[in-house]
Amino acid sequence: MKIMANKEKALITEILMKLGLKKENSEIVAEATLDADLKGFTSHGIGRFPQYINAIKRGNINIEEKIDIERETDSIALINGNGLFGQVVAYNAMKLAIAKAKKTGIGAVGTHDANHFGVTGFYSDLAIKEDTIGIVMANTDPAMAPLGGKIPVIGTNPIAIGIPANETYIALDMATSISARGRLLEAKRKGEEIPGDIALDIDGNPTTDPSKALEGSILPFGGHKGYGLAFMIELITGPLVSAAFGSKVEGTANYEKKCTKGDFFIAIDPSKFVAIEKFKEDTEEFIREVRSSGDTIVPGDLEVKEIVKNEKNGIIIDENLHVQLKEICDDLNINFEDYLTKE
Amino acid sequence: MKIMANKEKALITEILMKLGLKKENSEIVAEATLDADLKGFTSHGIGRFPQYINAIKRGNINIEEKIDIERETDSIALINGNGLFGQVVAYNAMKLAIAKAKKTGIGAVGTHDANHFGVTGFYSDLAIKEDTIGIVMANTDPAMAPLGGKIPVIGTNPIAIGIPANETYIALDMATSISARGRLLEAKRKGEEIPGDIALDIDGNPTTDPSKALEGSILPFGGHKGYGLAFMIELITGPLVSAAFGSKVEGTANYEKKCTKGDFFIAIDPSKFVAIEKFKEDTEEFIREVRSSGDTIVPGDLEVKEIVKNEKNGIIIDENLHVQLKEICDDLNINFEDYLTKE
Repeated sequence: MKIMANKEKALITEILMKLGLKKENSEIVAEATLDADLKGFTSHGIGRFPQYINAIKRGNINIEEKIDIERETDSIALINGNGLFGQVVAYNAMKLAIAKAKKTGIGAVGTHDANHFGVTGFYSDLAIKEDTIGIVMANTDPAMAPLGGKIPVIGTNPIAIGIPANETYIALDMATSISARGRLLEAKRKGEEIPGDIALDIDGNPTTDPSKALEGSILPFGGHKGYGLAFMIELITGPLVSAAFGSKVEGTANYEKKCTKGDFFIAIDPSKFVAIEKFKEDTEEFIREVRSSGDTIVPGDLEVKEIVKNEKNGIIIDENLHVQLKEICDDLNINFEDYLTKE
Repeated sequence: MKIMANKEKALITEILMKLGLKKENSEIVAEATLDADLKGFTSHGIGRFPQYINAIKRGNINIEEKIDIERETDSIALINGNGLFGQVVAYNAMKLAIAKAKKTGIGAVGTHDANHFGVTGFYSDLAIKEDTIGIVMANTDPAMAPLGGKIPVIGTNPIAIGIPANETYIALDMATSISARGRLLEAKRKGEEIPGDIALDIDGNPTTDPSKALEGSILPFGGHKGYGLAFMIELITGPLVSAAFGSKVEGTANYEKKCTKGDFFIAIDPSKFVAIEKFKEDTEEFIREVRSSGDTIVPGDLEVKEIVKNEKNGIIIDENLHVQLKEICDDLNINFEDYLTKE
């Protein structure tokens, strides 16, 4: 079974509206979820959606409150997400950062008490669409041990950067861990070994056994440099924004717990520095130079390829996910089969 | 021969003042140069100073002009460095970013037409000293080929991040290349091989021969993720700030050319988001958790260790450097030997 992109968006919107979420917020969650599936980050797509419904039922995702702006200047704001959908909080945070950037050249908005927001790059993309540079950071449940350490106290701490150009989609969206936790879970399920240089066991020794790695920790990407970046992101998305940090972060991987992580959104308006046309032309010139240097890629190329493919072919709904979504739809008198396409 | 820290600062200040640079600017260059030596980044310390003098003589470093602020809002500015010492331009840029952050919560200042500024972390340290978070980026002469490419069109593009805390020095200062160009030059000089995973020859193949690597390119740190970061920094410190980018960047490694790179300085004032005491306490709490996770380090630990050692022992002046500095001093009627300490 599979679902086409427009149907996925319609399905998620309908489910959330029937559960009582406002239309505009339902659409934000639907778009963010679809964005993950289109880009091929399926661990953050519709496959995760049933967990959101579970979190609503447990009261860990709040569909009635509004965000509170707790602190604000012309260029920054601190938002209390009041337990809303992470996508809704993050969308509003980035939109606010963009509005501030349009006014003063740069805007930065921090959020706390928001739930998991899906893929980080969805929010830097919002900046690109308004001719601004977007930078997004978040912390997550602990997954990495500090360099030389044994106990995971740092999240997989993603960072996304998006830059507007005339034609090219320029976007970086990456965890600061060398591997996603999902990769270890998958290897365990399949009874496969993992490479020897991505994770440590509980004693801090490299391991190829995914079970031991899951009890231990994942390594940062790029050794001490990636570790340093993950470390800084933990502080910028924890103490700076009144969110949890280190071992106190929870609820990003397990929806049965209240989500305590934090996020940080920066928008920069190039037109306050230089003529925007010149900025975009120069950027495309750099891209032409990069492409002519050999068989290379620009950050964002792989996502564009995935989007084209998945928009054409649709998104796979496996048997397990089919059962979960059908149950959700049955409860809400939604005819799930209407949304699906036979393979 | 060696020179003690206070003497190095006094020597550089005296030389520059005798050459006509204002006292306050001479002291900035001296402090930034000493900072590199104290932290152990000797390639950016007094060993590079004779090249600065050379650049002044050639007119590539301008000691008479002032910086121009070309664009400005409450939160951002664009500075034309008018060919001044990079240290002077960068110092003023970061100070301006900090002042803006104190007002609106975040400040960002870009610079173009400035010379090489020494170590990136010197400027994020300025932010720390004023209880703000500092982020500094720069592009450099091309050194890295894009991932899969053969021709170097991306600089070693450093990024530095500094975060204020109660006791701990928290600072990251790193190139986005896996190795400094200086490491290749040193291996060539010594007739040594380099590791097989840090550089490519002119055909894009991995090489252990430093001569072939110097004709080719250095790899980014951390594979495609480090490449993505280097790529984004190139655009933020090139097109965004009216500076050169890609193959047009020159003068950062070779002082016989006018320096065309750009820099970007961000300061964030945590007190606009949360109580500054709480921010610093939380930050120290995270550091305690990191330190208790095993035999680990916090970004900045290695620099602190180096500073203590080098302040005590002084900075080595090798024979070649001794000759160069003596010649500079003789020309200006400065008694070089007075500044030195016998080993």
